[in-house]
Amino acid sequence: MSRRVTGPEIERLIQLLARLPGLGPRSARRAALQLVKKRDQLLIPLAEAMAVAAQKVTTCSCCGNVDTADPCAVCTDPQRDRSVIVVVEDVADLWALERAGAIDALYHVLGGTLSPLDGIGPDDLDIAGLVERAAQGEVREVILAVNATVDGQTTAHYVTDRLQGFGIRVSRLAHGVPVGGELDYLDEGTLTAAIRARQPF
Amino acid sequence: MSRRVTGPEIERLIQLLARLPGLGPRSARRAALQLVKKRDQLLIPLAEAMAVAAQKVTTCSCCGNVDTADPCAVCTDPQRDRSVIVVVEDVADLWALERAGAIDALYHVLGGTLSPLDGIGPDDLDIAGLVERAAQGEVREVILAVNATVDGQTTAHYVTDRLQGFGIRVSRLAHGVPVGGELDYLDEGTLTAAIRARQPF
Repeated sequence: MSRRVTGPEIERLIQLLARLPGLGPRSARRAALQLVKKRDQLLIPLAEAMAVAAQKVTTCSCCGNVDTADPCAVCTDPQRDRSVIVVVEDVADLWALERAGAIDALYHVLGGTLSPLDGIGPDDLDIAGLVERAAQGEVREVILAVNATVDGQTTAHYVTDRLQGFGIRVSRLAHGVPVGGELDYLDEGTLTAAIRARQPF
Repeated sequence: MSRRVTGPEIERLIQLLARLPGLGPRSARRAALQLVKKRDQLLIPLAEAMAVAAQKVTTCSCCGNVDTADPCAVCTDPQRDRSVIVVVEDVADLWALERAGAIDALYHVLGGTLSPLDGIGPDDLDIAGLVERAAQGEVREVILAVNATVDGQTTAHYVTDRLQGFGIRVSRLAHGVPVGGELDYLDEGTLTAAIRARQPF
């Protein structure tokens, strides 16, 4: 702001809020004002929740999920099929698949994709941990649920090579028309993939 | 989420973040993951900033601005023209006018607009405080910078009546074509107002 209209503590709160994904400078100001207006119902509880999270949050040493317990709620869930590991790039992908209730298996978070241009190599991802889990023999199938991007597919191929020799079935997500998708708006690659992978009706 | 994939502390953080304006459930999850990933650079500083704000933030007893000092940075700014008060509905409006550097005056935050339908009457807004400031004699002009909505204009008329008898000039924001606006996309009301208030070129 051109001149000071509020305290430095509030300016700092706005600056930090603006660094959250989905919040720009303007929405950060709106959020800060909302927080201040709802001091007892929102600001104080959120400050406390963040302090608790900062203190307790950890990364699952087995799958890389974010949790307050290690191993995480997924790895310790007795209901899951422990013979299937779904490999994802990011924790957000793990959570998305869980929200969909797509599969009742274990996960492994790589923490990104191979990207030579950005200098991200195999050692920067948790591929060794995946291979280690695969070597333990309990795993029958690894599903590569990486993004359908160039880097994602490169990573998928690399991981597949690393999993050779364990007698593990390696699969990837199907390409095709998104449910609810309109052909008219889909790219050629998706349409071609959908035709190639056509199913008996 | 269908089953627990992360700790309740993190679920709670997500739920609270989702109550911020501009953040929905999905973006709240992304924000929470971002916070957890940037624990030291973002999560801890933000938790502290919120705790400090919760402790120090106050409402200016003079103008209603949000600050950590009372009277606020605006009311105590010696550079400003203390004979002009800009009346706004909300603190966000005050900050917006300050960002624009539109005027170098004092402000008064009403805290909303009159809205019989929502049961918001004069006593629910800080109109008494404005009249009190006007009565002190230092004020020459009051600019009604309320939204160009029905409730905003109703409020403007009411405030104008309340300011009668103090020998104060009461003005309102000009209606017209927004800077950069295209006539083709403007509503009839705005175009009519812009024609009526046409300026010599």
